[in-house]
Amino acid sequence: MNSTFLPIRGLRLGGAAAGIRYRNRNDLVALELAPEATCAAVFTRNAFCAAPVVVAREHLQDSAPRYLLINSGNANAGTGDAGLAAARASCRLLAEAAGCRPEEVLPFSTGVIGEPLPVERIGAALSALLADLAEDGWPRAADAIMTTDTVRKLVCRETAVGDATIRVTGMAKGAGMICPDMATMLAFVATDAAVPQALLQRCLQQAVAPSFNAITIDGDTSTNDACVLIATGGGGLRIDEERSAAGRALFDAVREVCLDLAQAIVEDGEGATKRVEIVVEEARDRAEARAVAYTIAHSPLVKTALYASDPNWGRILAAVGRAGIAELGIRGVRIWLDEVRIVCDGGRDPDYTEAAGRAVLAQPAFTIRVALGRGEARARVLTCDLSVDYVKINADYRT
Amino acid sequence: MNSTFLPIRGLRLGGAAAGIRYRNRNDLVALELAPEATCAAVFTRNAFCAAPVVVAREHLQDSAPRYLLINSGNANAGTGDAGLAAARASCRLLAEAAGCRPEEVLPFSTGVIGEPLPVERIGAALSALLADLAEDGWPRAADAIMTTDTVRKLVCRETAVGDATIRVTGMAKGAGMICPDMATMLAFVATDAAVPQALLQRCLQQAVAPSFNAITIDGDTSTNDACVLIATGGGGLRIDEERSAAGRALFDAVREVCLDLAQAIVEDGEGATKRVEIVVEEARDRAEARAVAYTIAHSPLVKTALYASDPNWGRILAAVGRAGIAELGIRGVRIWLDEVRIVCDGGRDPDYTEAAGRAVLAQPAFTIRVALGRGEARARVLTCDLSVDYVKINADYRT
Repeated sequence: MNSTFLPIRGLRLGGAAAGIRYRNRNDLVALELAPEATCAAVFTRNAFCAAPVVVAREHLQDSAPRYLLINSGNANAGTGDAGLAAARASCRLLAEAAGCRPEEVLPFSTGVIGEPLPVERIGAALSALLADLAEDGWPRAADAIMTTDTVRKLVCRETAVGDATIRVTGMAKGAGMICPDMATMLAFVATDAAVPQALLQRCLQQAVAPSFNAITIDGDTSTNDACVLIATGGGGLRIDEERSAAGRALFDAVREVCLDLAQAIVEDGEGATKRVEIVVEEARDRAEARAVAYTIAHSPLVKTALYASDPNWGRILAAVGRAGIAELGIRGVRIWLDEVRIVCDGGRDPDYTEAAGRAVLAQPAFTIRVALGRGEARARVLTCDLSVDYVKINADYRT
Repeated sequence: MNSTFLPIRGLRLGGAAAGIRYRNRNDLVALELAPEATCAAVFTRNAFCAAPVVVAREHLQDSAPRYLLINSGNANAGTGDAGLAAARASCRLLAEAAGCRPEEVLPFSTGVIGEPLPVERIGAALSALLADLAEDGWPRAADAIMTTDTVRKLVCRETAVGDATIRVTGMAKGAGMICPDMATMLAFVATDAAVPQALLQRCLQQAVAPSFNAITIDGDTSTNDACVLIATGGGGLRIDEERSAAGRALFDAVREVCLDLAQAIVEDGEGATKRVEIVVEEARDRAEARAVAYTIAHSPLVKTALYASDPNWGRILAAVGRAGIAELGIRGVRIWLDEVRIVCDGGRDPDYTEAAGRAVLAQPAFTIRVALGRGEARARVLTCDLSVDYVKINADYRT
């Protein structure tokens, strides 16, 4: 998160204050892609995806995008036909102002669910928005997409490939897979390499799996989640093969940027006081490893114990036991807090001491590792604790 | 919960203070069954069930139980071979003191996970325990099995069948499917009818499905859950057929006692300020209805909104959308808070007002009803809100 800011040639960003919900701050962002840029995207798997997700998916089928239009403060989710019409109207207004086709605009929204999107306010702010476009606009854009986030999430990488370089810059907003009414994780990543769309999509999917798709604040997958990867070609390097040196460098850099952004989202999770990595090993398959990891990550009892720095290993063991794994034998299971083994042979490790466990959990970040003793598969999930502040933030949000 | 206390002929109960964890209160309970009594039981489906669950299952295969031995303050879970030996030793000690075989004793434990069970303290309290046995011992026993429970859970029913009557009395401890370190729901129900074991087991399973197996405080299924149904025959009425008038009366009374006890557990859930019934209708099958109901019941965002009396229907809709139901169309979904419809046609009901929703959620108990518009199946789950106190109770428990 402390990386030096690196703009991406061929991508201009701008922000404006449309007054959608917030006052005295920017809440509208546009990204302008060079005509030759390619774009890959992944969206929420929530069955009730928001109107902008529906429209963005439609537009991606027909056209290569020229503009991304993002608003914060209003998710345009659960808004029915009026919401779809509002998302389409926003795209049309920007297309008219910028001189492109409406299908070349992708809409994104984050904020309160179920409120009508004030399209006229967006329309009124578009000339200021377009006037603000610049390649160094990333920090302003990263600020404008924030909702309950407390810190800007902007990550940059530059990798040498022979004599050339590849830049990857990305921004995201959290605060988790889920936030109060705002229920939105958005991430926008760009590279200055030239990459065909199919390869770019593969690159994005490989980067998202271990990063954004492996974090959870509270398990509430949002209606608006979206992650976009743009390749402008502005850096001059063209990449056509995943297995080339440049391809590998690109995939690595995009994955690292996504991992950093995902970690930043967890650290800024609502009420979070700790970042916790959960690693499950020796599972029969990856689905089983993920099921155990997410059961631990979503257990309110485990999360409140982590908040209290209480090495309450019985709660972790009970979570493993209720993860729905067939024929799971307790004797094969071992559990570690960082390097401190707490469980073996179906019970507490005889060498374990509460003081050792408590010392691990007192840290701001640590790992819970579970070995199931029945296979070779592995999964990793990043989460945070459940604090009194989480409840307060989510109980008080709309009042 | 305010029913008149009714003892069960053929079942004597007693309590004693063994000092297992608590001081100055009873923490050990015995139930003595008449020789002709039958007994049915269901246990936790957590893969890592506690030592007493393993031993109770073994003993049930071989023998008709004469005694149930229950301790609070220590779950004897995650205790490995030593825990199994401790559970067996407890049974042997009681069998010696009472003059029966060890296999005729069923052990039950509730309390902290992972601590060695102090068998010698149990042994030292057995003569006092046996001396305390009496048919009116239910209230003392219901108090002695409590851990984080704040109220005694004891329910009685009496039903006339022709000239005869059937009594059903039950007790339980919560505080939810899950408690801090204590992770235990225990329920003991008895009738004075004479019922063959196979019929009694069917009666228990039909009663447990809509009651104990349809409540959740926080989704953390425990390692020690157990529910036992005893038929002493002390009332003189013999029941051999489920479809007879007496059979139907028994099944109804047992189900009602279990429903009352389950409701009492939810109302006494840790930190709970509200009891919330979640009904999902018009699902393609029952599994789908249950998946949606539990996704809502476990959503931290929904639960914190309920705590705040905030009718944040977007969170409910988002939970329905992420429940993993294939081809779920948002347009068919309607959602009500009691009789107030909040969602239809993929968005907020046009007639809905925040004031109407807020009035429902301000009540101590209410229903969230979801109609999926795709079938005839239905499920019902009882849960509670997620409060600041829940986090405090579970963060501070061991400190």
